[in-house]
Amino acid sequence: MNTLEETNIFASLESEVRSYSRSWPAVFSSASGSWIRSEDGRDYLDFFAGAGALNYGHNNPVMKEALLDYLIGDGITHGLDMNTVAKRRFLETFRRNILEPRGLDYKVQFPGPTGTNAVEAALKLARKVTGRESIINFTNAFHGMTLGSLSVTGNSMKRAGAGVPLVHATPMPFDNYFNGVTEDFHWFERVLDDAGSGLNRPAAVIVETVQGEGGVNVARPEWLRALADLCSSRGILLIVDDVQMGCGRTGPFFSFEVAGITPDIVTLSKSIGGYGLPMALTLMRPELDLWAPGEHNGTFRGNNPAFVTATAALDHYWSDDALSRSTAAKGKRIHEIFANLSDRFAGVSTRGRGMVQGLVFDDPGHAVKVCGLAYDEGLLAETSGPSDEVVKLLPPLTVTDAELDHGLSILAEATAKVCA
Amino acid sequence: MNTLEETNIFASLESEVRSYSRSWPAVFSSASGSWIRSEDGRDYLDFFAGAGALNYGHNNPVMKEALLDYLIGDGITHGLDMNTVAKRRFLETFRRNILEPRGLDYKVQFPGPTGTNAVEAALKLARKVTGRESIINFTNAFHGMTLGSLSVTGNSMKRAGAGVPLVHATPMPFDNYFNGVTEDFHWFERVLDDAGSGLNRPAAVIVETVQGEGGVNVARPEWLRALADLCSSRGILLIVDDVQMGCGRTGPFFSFEVAGITPDIVTLSKSIGGYGLPMALTLMRPELDLWAPGEHNGTFRGNNPAFVTATAALDHYWSDDALSRSTAAKGKRIHEIFANLSDRFAGVSTRGRGMVQGLVFDDPGHAVKVCGLAYDEGLLAETSGPSDEVVKLLPPLTVTDAELDHGLSILAEATAKVCA
Amino acid sequence: MNTLEETNIFASLESEVRSYSRSWPAVFSSASGSWIRSEDGRDYLDFFAGAGALNYGHNNPVMKEALLDYLIGDGITHGLDMNTVAKRRFLETFRRNILEPRGLDYKVQFPGPTGTNAVEAALKLARKVTGRESIINFTNAFHGMTLGSLSVTGNSMKRAGAGVPLVHATPMPFDNYFNGVTEDFHWFERVLDDAGSGLNRPAAVIVETVQGEGGVNVARPEWLRALADLCSSRGILLIVDDVQMGCGRTGPFFSFEVAGITPDIVTLSKSIGGYGLPMALTLMRPELDLWAPGEHNGTFRGNNPAFVTATAALDHYWSDDALSRSTAAKGKRIHEIFANLSDRFAGVSTRGRGMVQGLVFDDPGHAVKVCGLAYDEGLLAETSGPSDEVVKLLPPLTVTDAELDHGLSILAEATAKVCA
Amino acid sequence: MNTLEETNIFASLESEVRSYSRSWPAVFSSASGSWIRSEDGRDYLDFFAGAGALNYGHNNPVMKEALLDYLIGDGITHGLDMNTVAKRRFLETFRRNILEPRGLDYKVQFPGPTGTNAVEAALKLARKVTGRESIINFTNAFHGMTLGSLSVTGNSMKRAGAGVPLVHATPMPFDNYFNGVTEDFHWFERVLDDAGSGLNRPAAVIVETVQGEGGVNVARPEWLRALADLCSSRGILLIVDDVQMGCGRTGPFFSFEVAGITPDIVTLSKSIGGYGLPMALTLMRPELDLWAPGEHNGTFRGNNPAFVTATAALDHYWSDDALSRSTAAKGKRIHEIFANLSDRFAGVSTRGRGMVQGLVFDDPGHAVKVCGLAYDEGLLAETSGPSDEVVKLLPPLTVTDAELDHGLSILAEATAKVCA
Repeated sequence: MNTLEETNIFASLESEVRSYSRSWPAVFSSASGSWIRSEDGRDYLDFFAGAGALNYGHNNPVMKEALLDYLIGDGITHGLDMNTVAKRRFLETFRRNILEPRGLDYKVQFPGPTGTNAVEAALKLARKVTGRESIINFTNAFHGMTLGSLSVTGNSMKRAGAGVPLVHATPMPFDNYFNGVTEDFHWFERVLDDAGSGLNRPAAVIVETVQGEGGVNVARPEWLRALADLCSSRGILLIVDDVQMGCGRTGPFFSFEVAGITPDIVTLSKSIGGYGLPMALTLMRPELDLWAPGEHNGTFRGNNPAFVTATAALDHYWSDDALSRSTAAKGKRIHEIFANLSDRFAGVSTRGRGMVQGLVFDDPGHAVKVCGLAYDEGLLAETSGPSDEVVKLLPPLTVTDAELDHGLSILAEATAKVCA
Repeated sequence: MNTLEETNIFASLESEVRSYSRSWPAVFSSASGSWIRSEDGRDYLDFFAGAGALNYGHNNPVMKEALLDYLIGDGITHGLDMNTVAKRRFLETFRRNILEPRGLDYKVQFPGPTGTNAVEAALKLARKVTGRESIINFTNAFHGMTLGSLSVTGNSMKRAGAGVPLVHATPMPFDNYFNGVTEDFHWFERVLDDAGSGLNRPAAVIVETVQGEGGVNVARPEWLRALADLCSSRGILLIVDDVQMGCGRTGPFFSFEVAGITPDIVTLSKSIGGYGLPMALTLMRPELDLWAPGEHNGTFRGNNPAFVTATAALDHYWSDDALSRSTAAKGKRIHEIFANLSDRFAGVSTRGRGMVQGLVFDDPGHAVKVCGLAYDEGLLAETSGPSDEVVKLLPPLTVTDAELDHGLSILAEATAKVCA
Repeated sequence: MNTLEETNIFASLESEVRSYSRSWPAVFSSASGSWIRSEDGRDYLDFFAGAGALNYGHNNPVMKEALLDYLIGDGITHGLDMNTVAKRRFLETFRRNILEPRGLDYKVQFPGPTGTNAVEAALKLARKVTGRESIINFTNAFHGMTLGSLSVTGNSMKRAGAGVPLVHATPMPFDNYFNGVTEDFHWFERVLDDAGSGLNRPAAVIVETVQGEGGVNVARPEWLRALADLCSSRGILLIVDDVQMGCGRTGPFFSFEVAGITPDIVTLSKSIGGYGLPMALTLMRPELDLWAPGEHNGTFRGNNPAFVTATAALDHYWSDDALSRSTAAKGKRIHEIFANLSDRFAGVSTRGRGMVQGLVFDDPGHAVKVCGLAYDEGLLAETSGPSDEVVKLLPPLTVTDAELDHGLSILAEATAKVCA
Repeated sequence: MNTLEETNIFASLESEVRSYSRSWPAVFSSASGSWIRSEDGRDYLDFFAGAGALNYGHNNPVMKEALLDYLIGDGITHGLDMNTVAKRRFLETFRRNILEPRGLDYKVQFPGPTGTNAVEAALKLARKVTGRESIINFTNAFHGMTLGSLSVTGNSMKRAGAGVPLVHATPMPFDNYFNGVTEDFHWFERVLDDAGSGLNRPAAVIVETVQGEGGVNVARPEWLRALADLCSSRGILLIVDDVQMGCGRTGPFFSFEVAGITPDIVTLSKSIGGYGLPMALTLMRPELDLWAPGEHNGTFRGNNPAFVTATAALDHYWSDDALSRSTAAKGKRIHEIFANLSDRFAGVSTRGRGMVQGLVFDDPGHAVKVCGLAYDEGLLAETSGPSDEVVKLLPPLTVTDAELDHGLSILAEATAKVCA
């Protein structure tokens, strides 16, 4: 058959490491808003949205126009870390629409255009500033695939890919790891304060407020506050990795706003570029900005087309709180449907915040089956969690109510089929 | 003053880690071919070309058209590692124009769109496949800023940024490290074969055929062949990091072609995207492709706009050997001028291959001064080497002869001023 | 004064690292049984007993005679790991009196004559056999001062002495670390079984059944059994470090006998030589004995005079269960006195097993004061615990009832003085 | 047969790690001077002398008397690091006979009674003092089997026993590693001074002046001086590991005296106890003595019987230079015989200093055969070197001329048999 033949080159030439193309074998050609189309003309509702890189949907017209204008006008495409007009506009807009309204005085580093690069820069800086090596991470954390980020990532299959022992990181239990049985921070606080515990004094704690890859595990605001207090009282830096949960995914721009905390270092990537273009930021409290010039660099840290789309996105979506409110409302809608499914079917539960919502199956195989059936019905949804036991929804924040209902109905039917 | 005020935000908001913006304080707005323009209307001849990311010049019209068409048509912008039409076209073109004509049967991994990600993937794979941890790198190597790549990078300032001891790597002398006094591989071969040497048996050797950041140090073909033989006879994998020297910089597409060797693993980035868009590849001999699905991943590994421009670049520039021949000719021209300067001025010498050429000053301060004067005259050129003692030229391969002569005359005058 | 002048050389020539000589500044000259005499003729009752190396008292006449005979007869003093008559006798006696009656079929390694060497050999073997690097240790563990042992030791001051980050070890809570609030192994079991926990899969668990240095923390038999089960069900090796608690300190020869478990690897040192001479053993289940000849060695691993005294000790004290029963009885006596003190004084409690008993003070300064007053009254007793908050008693197992009562009465009076 | 049956327990109960008992299967019972006797009454001339632990021969009567007196008088046997009369006498004698005459003002640490413990203490101190992790070691170095010492040891079989990657050490070529072809320190000096070399800045260099285990590789005085200069000019500490070569083995008490250098840190063990009893010292320049009390400790660091024999040895042998002169003369005698053998037989050469002398065979099998034949004729001699290609002689320094000639004649005959 034609499709098979045409996809052949993926199987024959691309490395075995490829993954999404295995669950979703279609060859995609174009996309718009919440929809992605395969070359044989089929449309898929995309509730995965670039793993959170497409919060504003595919090829959002607002950014598209800005990008085309910029490219047509021969704006700087590649700018290393030189000063450019596009970078200045981004910085101004980020300060005006994001930092200032939230009373944040972070310095901004462009660490290279991927999330893992932002995390590596954060870890390096935390170690440099404190003079300590050890990092505390959390169970089921995901922070990236380069060696520094991988060492603070939980997934054992991915860790095994390192080929060297991953050291300098000690995992602590994420919120609710013991289903509420054990008091929060009991263990962490105790080993920090016990001079005989054997725990290397950490430079920093790195945490996601909602663990997406880890299975949509949601940290309560009070847990995050307690963590921030713990760090601050012991002179440990707090890094919030907001690569997936930032840029409005949970409602507010930063996912940690709900807890009222101010991390020492914040990483952003994925949707910060607005249009799915590679871009990343490492934010740091000004007194931590002890980098020497060029001490961390990278060829694509000045991805100017992404600055342009990022600026357009911040201008359009973050001048007021409309998007945050709409995200809250849509998140609520997803939650209602998921809660209903949890009520209807044994072994199903739900958790999430804003527009990252998980449908959790006691039987891990069920989540995979639900996503498979959804794909057949034209919906892209992915599993997460250590055993792939969670259907993780990350729809574009710009999804329409009708699209949302359509996608949720597909999921509801799939769940009914699998669990009935 | 206006400019000062406008650049203010870079100083106040961007991290101290910024570097190029310090030597070239202009705020750049647009660019075309070999030229980059600042917002105050001044044009600069760009002989740095995105540190090698702009081999085809700024906003090359061939790729620009393809990119605009793609974006206007709502082609997939962000595709994770899903199959897309753009990826297929890239793979087909890469196979047809690059791999097949050179008799290479590499598998292709999209490891994330930056050079350091390609290197991290290469190191992880080499360790996974061999079950060994140790890597041999070379003096003055540069491979990237994430933890794995940084551990095989030579620069001590950059290494210090890690904040943890960088282990699992042992440096060996690059070609001509002892100015020809010591026989090649004397030390490396001896410690490999001496069961009592204390050298951990390496998984792989990682090498640049020409060290750009390290000071335009050029490995002779016979040295590269001897290295390849050494690796192959001892069961050590050979990784060529072609991030900066690949994509035609030295003449042929791969920089190692001159030596007639076939590395086990090759990394590409920078100019592979063709238009300065973030993209990277890790190539591996098929029998090494032991990755599990998803064992290494990353949000932007499917940067489809870059696939489009990459395809256009491969189609336009690599269907025949015209570019390679032109690069050889232009490289020769640069060399002649530089050789002439070396003859004229004491303490000046030159080295390079193809269109990466270095003007080396015994007095490191001289190279910095030459670049400063050149900037004043409207030429961007950067220093490299452990003491910034080398003026490193990386002009677009598409530079015209007139542009080349213009830029070289600026450099010649600057050199004369500094060295006279 | 004479003594001061004479002790001068310790202060002027010996390194600042010296420690016991600071709390007990007397210059000791001779010793016998439970008593140690300073050169100015004062006798001290020794309830520290070489930190557990003198379970049979100082210069025990049974071993003394054997040792003198051996030395007078020019028996082998230094034997590397050659076969000697003394080693054979030791092995035969150890098998007959220790291994066979307990149904143990351990192989015996002489890893070098110190506890830390026995631990290093145990860790190396566990890693070699499993192919994993990571070790689980426990809060407040003490296993030795060489790099491998230090990495599994808890004390932060001692860890800081390493000068390199101590990696490959993850601490878990020792029994009762949370005062009974948290269920046993909740955390350890959970992270072992969670593929996303980020815990490196361990080669082995290393545990002391009673943590001497850590503050006389006593693991309950049921905790030890649960630990052994956990290890065995997950393919993790169990190492019991019996350097201080073995050789009858807690009653039975091995301290783990009370739990009815059979560790995979056991370390012995301190009192195994019987006479305070350096000696150590690493015992391993036969199927784990995968050492290559000479893969671990050491000049003094055949300390034959220690074999002679060890043999005499095993012959005299371990042909029946008299010593075990007497240790139980004397331990009970100490416990009664300590329990009484705990009843009488607020902020005082007690814990221990057999003849390792601790008097725990809520106010850490109190324990140090009690030991100071005891020294003034002619009793050597030492503190332990992360804040030196525990008076740790390790009297010779051969102490007489009268001596025991005398020492305990000194401690009782000192406690009364400090706590009243 | 009887012997077989009797040795059975070694094979059945002792770990496979045992080594010397494999080449010399006799069961030894007593020893005196240069002779060691097996239980079946056979006498062996011992030219291995406890791998250098028996410089004064077996059961030397001078120390034997002192030891017996001490033991009979119930002198302290086990003293932790308390002040004792025996320790004071040792310190006084060591200062008077060793340190003061050589103008050395070292502080003395008792790090635990084995060579590897002395090395571990030296490495820890060097790292603590400098704040750096990395150590430079040399090809074919041997420093011990605990994790810190093993990481600076060259032998690949022994390194493999670690079970973790051995990091923080980088090997450099020992003197004459390239047979004089390459200039000394060319590589080391270059990578130290090149900011881009990728070499982690070392805390210390650790070196043996003559590598015993490594194959009797002798560093020239001028090489040692150049090394000391290199270290001193770059702020790197110089550690001389004199565990095997100290205590007069090469003639003077310290092996580095021949070079006129003063290392920053020195380790001693093996023969320092005089009688083959476990003992070790770490000496350090006073300004480096930054240990906190108890920061490095160990149960047997006060092995008082060894202090007694050590004192007797220092008193008897090191009050004048008679032993040094005699060692020089005997070394010369061995060298003459070995040089003669080298002349007579192709593929045989010799090297050594004082009374460590090696007979080097191009065919590694020959050295093993020679030692095997020697054993049959009643001589204990051992091979060393990465391929066991060197017959390494370490006779007691107290060997008589007649014994020496007898042993050498056995070796000469064996060599003749093997090489003829």
